[in-house]
Amino acid sequence: MDIAALRKAHPDHWKMAAAIRALALDAVAAANSGHTGMPLGMADIATVLYRNHLRFDPKSPDWADRDRFILSNGHGSMLLYALLHLTGYEEMTLEEIKNFRQWGSITAGHPENVLAKGIETTTGPLGQGFANSVGFAIAEESLRARFGAKLVDHRTWVFAGDGCLMEGVSQEALSLAGHLKLSRLVVFFDHNSITIDGPTDLADSTDQTERFAASGWHVQRVDGHDPEAIDAAIEAAKADDRPSLIACETHIALGHAAQDTSKGHGALTDPEQLQAAKEAYGWTGGPFEVPADIKAMWEQTGERGGAARAEWQSRLDALPQGKRQKFEAAMSGEIPNKLVSTVRALKKQMSESAPKMATRAASEKALEVINPVVRETLGGSADLTGSNNTLTSDLGIFTADDRKGRYVYYGIREHGMAAAMNGMALHGGIRPYGGTFMTFSDYARGAMRLSGLSHAPVVYVMTHDSIGLGEDGPTHQPIEHLAMLRATPNYVVLRPADAVETAEAWEVALLRKDGPTVLALSRQGLPTVRKDHKSKNLTAQGGYVLADAEGKRQALLMASGSEVAVALAARDLLQAEGIGTRVVSMPSMELFAAQEESYRKRVLPGGAAVRVAIEAASRQPWDRWLCGERGREAKAAFIGMEGFGASAPQDVLYKQFGITAEATAEKVKALL
Amino acid sequence: MDIAALRKAHPDHWKMAAAIRALALDAVAAANSGHTGMPLGMADIATVLYRNHLRFDPKSPDWADRDRFILSNGHGSMLLYALLHLTGYEEMTLEEIKNFRQWGSITAGHPENVLAKGIETTTGPLGQGFANSVGFAIAEESLRARFGAKLVDHRTWVFAGDGCLMEGVSQEALSLAGHLKLSRLVVFFDHNSITIDGPTDLADSTDQTERFAASGWHVQRVDGHDPEAIDAAIEAAKADDRPSLIACETHIALGHAAQDTSKGHGALTDPEQLQAAKEAYGWTGGPFEVPADIKAMWEQTGERGGAARAEWQSRLDALPQGKRQKFEAAMSGEIPNKLVSTVRALKKQMSESAPKMATRAASEKALEVINPVVRETLGGSADLTGSNNTLTSDLGIFTADDRKGRYVYYGIREHGMAAAMNGMALHGGIRPYGGTFMTFSDYARGAMRLSGLSHAPVVYVMTHDSIGLGEDGPTHQPIEHLAMLRATPNYVVLRPADAVETAEAWEVALLRKDGPTVLALSRQGLPTVRKDHKSKNLTAQGGYVLADAEGKRQALLMASGSEVAVALAARDLLQAEGIGTRVVSMPSMELFAAQEESYRKRVLPGGAAVRVAIEAASRQPWDRWLCGERGREAKAAFIGMEGFGASAPQDVLYKQFGITAEATAEKVKALL
Repeated sequence: MDIAALRKAHPDHWKMAAAIRALALDAVAAANSGHTGMPLGMADIATVLYRNHLRFDPKSPDWADRDRFILSNGHGSMLLYALLHLTGYEEMTLEEIKNFRQWGSITAGHPENVLAKGIETTTGPLGQGFANSVGFAIAEESLRARFGAKLVDHRTWVFAGDGCLMEGVSQEALSLAGHLKLSRLVVFFDHNSITIDGPTDLADSTDQTERFAASGWHVQRVDGHDPEAIDAAIEAAKADDRPSLIACETHIALGHAAQDTSKGHGALTDPEQLQAAKEAYGWTGGPFEVPADIKAMWEQTGERGGAARAEWQSRLDALPQGKRQKFEAAMSGEIPNKLVSTVRALKKQMSESAPKMATRAASEKALEVINPVVRETLGGSADLTGSNNTLTSDLGIFTADDRKGRYVYYGIREHGMAAAMNGMALHGGIRPYGGTFMTFSDYARGAMRLSGLSHAPVVYVMTHDSIGLGEDGPTHQPIEHLAMLRATPNYVVLRPADAVETAEAWEVALLRKDGPTVLALSRQGLPTVRKDHKSKNLTAQGGYVLADAEGKRQALLMASGSEVAVALAARDLLQAEGIGTRVVSMPSMELFAAQEESYRKRVLPGGAAVRVAIEAASRQPWDRWLCGERGREAKAAFIGMEGFGASAPQDVLYKQFGITAEATAEKVKALL
Repeated sequence: MDIAALRKAHPDHWKMAAAIRALALDAVAAANSGHTGMPLGMADIATVLYRNHLRFDPKSPDWADRDRFILSNGHGSMLLYALLHLTGYEEMTLEEIKNFRQWGSITAGHPENVLAKGIETTTGPLGQGFANSVGFAIAEESLRARFGAKLVDHRTWVFAGDGCLMEGVSQEALSLAGHLKLSRLVVFFDHNSITIDGPTDLADSTDQTERFAASGWHVQRVDGHDPEAIDAAIEAAKADDRPSLIACETHIALGHAAQDTSKGHGALTDPEQLQAAKEAYGWTGGPFEVPADIKAMWEQTGERGGAARAEWQSRLDALPQGKRQKFEAAMSGEIPNKLVSTVRALKKQMSESAPKMATRAASEKALEVINPVVRETLGGSADLTGSNNTLTSDLGIFTADDRKGRYVYYGIREHGMAAAMNGMALHGGIRPYGGTFMTFSDYARGAMRLSGLSHAPVVYVMTHDSIGLGEDGPTHQPIEHLAMLRATPNYVVLRPADAVETAEAWEVALLRKDGPTVLALSRQGLPTVRKDHKSKNLTAQGGYVLADAEGKRQALLMASGSEVAVALAARDLLQAEGIGTRVVSMPSMELFAAQEESYRKRVLPGGAAVRVAIEAASRQPWDRWLCGERGREAKAAFIGMEGFGASAPQDVLYKQFGITAEATAEKVKALL
């Protein structure tokens, strides 16, 4: 690249872009770790976007109608931190830039939305940001349809690299976005033809523009270092009614000795080379120093959106109070109090009618009364709508032609669905839930982990939660999945035992604001175990005494979901023999662990009683409760699965795998 | 569809295809569950393929040079079972067909390679079979390059549905296959435009042929019910030097009342409709009955490959014994005895030199001596070659132009890599290993679970296995992943503590024939903890006493990987205060659990000693060992991670999260 020519052609632009490059060089060198090449390569695109197009106001970083900027190639985090600092986001101080990647700083190795304003989502695992952006764009369309363009009228901008586009989740995201014609979504592809192992053509020869076009995208190719070309491409993207891919030919580590090499991807810390790059940029500032004229241009850029923000605020203020409150409540994530009374009424009805019902069907019953009350829910399923029971009568379908619908047919795209739901939840104004078979949480793992890390209140409706699904066999029967999900930080996993616990579980899930919830639901019908109505949400305690011992307590049975009925039947057998048996329903280990110790001890007292846990899944999560939190239990056993399942009717499977009341009673007696 | 016209145009073909359709209708009806529509829709394609092209011999189902047929849309399992039965695979009896989806049958809901010959891989989770097929094709190319076309000269044929192609893993698979020009791979896309939720266009509008073409595939569109058109397309696919997609326009549930509807996807059991369909087919046989003339035509088809098989055998027999033995040993999965002595020599060298070395680097050292000895290894990485330390000096790169290379640059495709490795392992003749960061096991989960279920001996090299990776932060720091992998059936997870255990771990992994192994390896340098050489492979025992208590045993510390050194340092502190402390290294919980109880009790004796486990990850897998297998332990504690990690240098993180020798010693003293 002839950098001198670039400098000459657009001197102001160049100086502003150089500020990003200089800060990235200094911060990575100071941390002696990080990724310099991407900020050096994408600084021109970022400068044009922030300077001329992005709708934002650093003084009101939470402005509901701001554009969302998503750095999917999150390893280039210094690009974003530099932009936030230069445009005047208060908390992104120079100190924070100097503490890049250090303990306690908000400038983490990869951007984390929970650490600083202006970071819309957590990225780094490649492809996630791009896949999130589909959800951001859906949320914008949905809220615009609900509240009107005077309140909601913004765009989603994405930076993505070769890695983001090689990950399979990118195909799920782009094909969904193309189908839904998400025209407010613009993706800048950092086409630098370099990956960590070397030139991209070591491993790929895909024509990305052809690929996106095959799914209905508007595609363009531009020189990623020509501000006029970038600006024109953005204008064309805005004008088109399809989502837009702008493939930007860039040079990774532009102007550095490592330019156009895979070495340039990483941390460039050599002092001479660093200085040489700064000189090539014509950079006069010292380390972490931005000359006043350049600082001023960036401050102007930061102030650009203030007027639009003020106009928007006045439009909001001018609204009739009711409509304004609706909008503000939606954006705040507030859940109407009516949810609690609605769930309570449903619980009462279920306790009284005591149906034998699959919890997936009970979940549909709950959603039928919840969706009209919680207007922010937006449901969907990865092509298992009828099996996941996720579509209720009043939702309507969200399509390219109808943005008022509140249900998305996600197609066979579990990973894309989960990532899109993260985007909706982080956008605000939407409470997404989505369904698949629990086994296929495997496909969604990459995005599900980030629901926890980014504090996204997503609800995963995971039906067919055990061998109880029957004949579809081991490929579809979850075994280790409850262990996997319970081990994931910031998750609440709920496995309700009947229609009453299912209603309570939905209340817990929707009242959660800072993280994801999994509902593990049965395919097979389950008896109602909660026959006397309690207004209190017992499921919210995680575990509770469902049936206590008659006479001296000799056995304590713990179970979740479909196995609670097995525990109760085992209790009948044992009590009939005079063996006092308590049954504890444990719908959520995380919620139980969060209770006060005194409560936990009341539910699971120490002492000599035999403890048996029953769950048609892996033993791993139960050991904590089997041996007692201080390890004082005398005798314990687990009834569940050791290997994979099998193909047969579900009652046959339960019998063959020994998950029955009889086997449980025998086990207890053997331990007495 | 005018079925009468189809019958008239190709009477013999039609009769043969009708046999598949009739058996599928009968079996699903008898099971009252399953998927009828796909076999009815793809029977014509299957008939042409098996009758005219597939290279197979039911009398020698393990024939090394057979074509591989992969049913990626595995829910249509009855199509495959019918083909195996009709062409004369001995074990696929009519009884088995009648027991479709029942306990103990080999006709599972979805095809499982471990249940019957002729089933090459386990499918059902959509996209997996297609992604496996890339590995099958790589294996064929690699073995042909090694042993010559006289011994290895076959193709891989795949049936895939809309669901397979909507899953993100399909993009990783097709872009890798296109890049590597896997010309022996032919995919039939069942383009029936129906998914479970309804017409495909509810959720997708991708032009699949354009999409495949964008990654260098040869693409065709044909009428999937016209045998001549299908046959011509297959000929064209064979003649082309690119992988081939044949998009077949088909009618799901052809000839049934549910034709062309999503209802047709599922179990079609209505007796009248079933009979009406059979009449439309002109089917004269009763339930599960195949008329003799049709049976005869299928038997001929089954006998078609016998001659080719015999010629191949005579070519093999004619080889010089050495070359023949090499080939047979490779295909049998036999590992040369020399592996053991090679590893032993390396261990000795490492114990003597006692380097401070990251276990990922130790893994590279092990591979440097193992790869020349175990000629079947085929390595790779998902674009982290330098970080995973997976490429050794003598491997060479497997490319479109050089099939002799033994290393694949998989690109940023963790899921595609794992699925491809499953295919290589199940093809036989190859022992695949592949690297990524342990956190990105999330991306590969869908395929990794199937490594376990399909008994595929794949080795996953997962580096950067804890917060020890440092500044990249929580998006890259695994926490729950060890719990997830240890909970997965048929997995062996190895987390070696130093270069000696790493060498032992590689031996364990390569001697494993019936399932996958994970090597969890550190980014950071670790001291050698095994300084006195033992020829015995202690890691193979899963857990062992690394350092015993001096004086009365008051504390028992357990740890794995990078935390073993922490445990040893804590032991020094405690012994200095006269507190007798045993340190148990636990590189693999699965292997330890498989030891005899007497051994386990010797390593982890009951009694009053304090037990503390140390691992920079989730507590969940440790509870079993903390409370003792009979729950008799008095006092126990865990030192590890409760939430996500953070961005900082690794020594800072260990200190901040309290995973230190000092914290461990304090914990022990507090419990005493």
